[in-house]
Amino acid sequence: MTRSSRIAVGPAGVPDWLADAVQAGGAHVVALDEADALLWGAPNDPDGLREVLDAAGDRLQWVQLPWAGIEPYVAALDADRLWTCGKGVYAEPVAEMVLTLALACMRSIDHYARSTTWLQYGHRGVNLRRAKVCVLGGGGITEVLLRLLGPFDCDTTVVRHRPHPMVGANRVVGSSPAEVDEAIEGSDLVVLALALTPETTGILDGRRMALLHGRSVVVNVARGPHVVTDDLVAALRAGTIMSAGLDVLDPEPLPDGHPLWSLTNCIITPHVGNTPEMARPLLAERITTNVARWIAGEELIGPVDPALGY
Amino acid sequence: MTRSSRIAVGPAGVPDWLADAVQAGGAHVVALDEADALLWGAPNDPDGLREVLDAAGDRLQWVQLPWAGIEPYVAALDADRLWTCGKGVYAEPVAEMVLTLALACMRSIDHYARSTTWLQYGHRGVNLRRAKVCVLGGGGITEVLLRLLGPFDCDTTVVRHRPHPMVGANRVVGSSPAEVDEAIEGSDLVVLALALTPETTGILDGRRMALLHGRSVVVNVARGPHVVTDDLVAALRAGTIMSAGLDVLDPEPLPDGHPLWSLTNCIITPHVGNTPEMARPLLAERITTNVARWIAGEELIGPVDPALGY
Repeated sequence: MTRSSRIAVGPAGVPDWLADAVQAGGAHVVALDEADALLWGAPNDPDGLREVLDAAGDRLQWVQLPWAGIEPYVAALDADRLWTCGKGVYAEPVAEMVLTLALACMRSIDHYARSTTWLQYGHRGVNLRRAKVCVLGGGGITEVLLRLLGPFDCDTTVVRHRPHPMVGANRVVGSSPAEVDEAIEGSDLVVLALALTPETTGILDGRRMALLHGRSVVVNVARGPHVVTDDLVAALRAGTIMSAGLDVLDPEPLPDGHPLWSLTNCIITPHVGNTPEMARPLLAERITTNVARWIAGEELIGPVDPALGY
Repeated sequence: MTRSSRIAVGPAGVPDWLADAVQAGGAHVVALDEADALLWGAPNDPDGLREVLDAAGDRLQWVQLPWAGIEPYVAALDADRLWTCGKGVYAEPVAEMVLTLALACMRSIDHYARSTTWLQYGHRGVNLRRAKVCVLGGGGITEVLLRLLGPFDCDTTVVRHRPHPMVGANRVVGSSPAEVDEAIEGSDLVVLALALTPETTGILDGRRMALLHGRSVVVNVARGPHVVTDDLVAALRAGTIMSAGLDVLDPEPLPDGHPLWSLTNCIITPHVGNTPEMARPLLAERITTNVARWIAGEELIGPVDPALGY
């Protein structure tokens, strides 16, 4: 059963690529009073949205919010129509960032990028191929990361709260302290891609870093406080692990003069696993896909539960 | 039809991992005068090898040379037995290096790795996902690279002397100047992974760099003279391309004080796409595989044609 292809884009002044994405999905972009669905492109204008919805009554059957996080709109949600957002879209660029930092550390780009002379360190550099990889967290980023790691034939262990099989993971284990220890032990690469909770704060501390080895690499794209920074500085200085790639820090932003800045076996990126420029084509793709699905009467991606608020 | 599992490892004094690799393939490592096959592990001792072969007559039916390049042994080859070497093994680490440099450039690791302060450049960073990729050269490195690029859903064009379809390539085109121009034009990523010949020297010059755009990345893992260095310096300075990752340079080694060292949109690695440490597990794997195939009577990997010398 196909549906109406009359979709409005609001509020006035949102960038053109939003309307372009709607049209690419096969819709006609129409005025608010002719539309049966709405793309609302303002990052933070819940009052404006409520006005539009109240004026339209139940005519607007679907609202797409482009961004992944919809905190500003929680109070504006209602049960009178379908709601979708850009949830999950950021997993792609962030998973790419994991692979970027992991490979950069394994190939000593940390070291070489800072050099202004031709170094002859033939002993530097390890392969990702067939490496033992431990990923803490089993959400959307990990799903994409496992896909990207596929051709490297790694031995992958995923730690998650509710363990169940994941495509591309050799094993998925629970998150008890003993299970985390066992998953981390001897890993060539440890990736932090989990939510920050009281239980996961400091999950990678000095005791667990001691379970790694001198060629191990740590990559954090989750939240800074997952890693005990002082313990990491000590491990990197002592060489008990090889290097670290950190897109999130504790404290963040990392202050000037912090010891991590001066360690050549550490790459720090300023929380740019996903940037607006990277996100735009992915958000556009999501909008286009959902518009096409809407018109075709298919299930939409990224549904929001108005009762839960996400 | 299975064959003898008596294999000698010579000459005396080669590292233990060679014999370990032979045993891992299911062979018994025996003395030279009891062996039916030989792993010759010296990088450069053709005279020693000839002595052993002449003493054994036609008893040694197969010789495995571990390394990929066998130039020192060309004169020692004969048609009296099977010869194999490690050819193709290095494609894996070098293709990883391509992906490392490409991702590092696309995510501005060149820039961030050198910083000692928290930068807020939200506009930096592009995705490899769905990028338009042009690979110059269609050999073993490209084969592996296409496999690694698979999950990124790129649009890939391979340029090679004799175009025929390759797994993972959207298209393979010939190497006429016009075809090279067309393949390069508008690419997000250009990878140089081809042999150096008079025709390919300077294949990426200023005129072709002008076919790229301000977010384009160039990665060279082939030979320095494929790229006209002065033209590259000019393009990086002007920002007509975004950045470059270079594991090979012209001149090489790049001298201290060369302008490339001071450009923050360039990552230089000192010809370490493959290092001895990276190669060892791959060579060991090749030896183990071939030993197992030998015993099982199967075809061996990396055969050498004694008449051609490679």
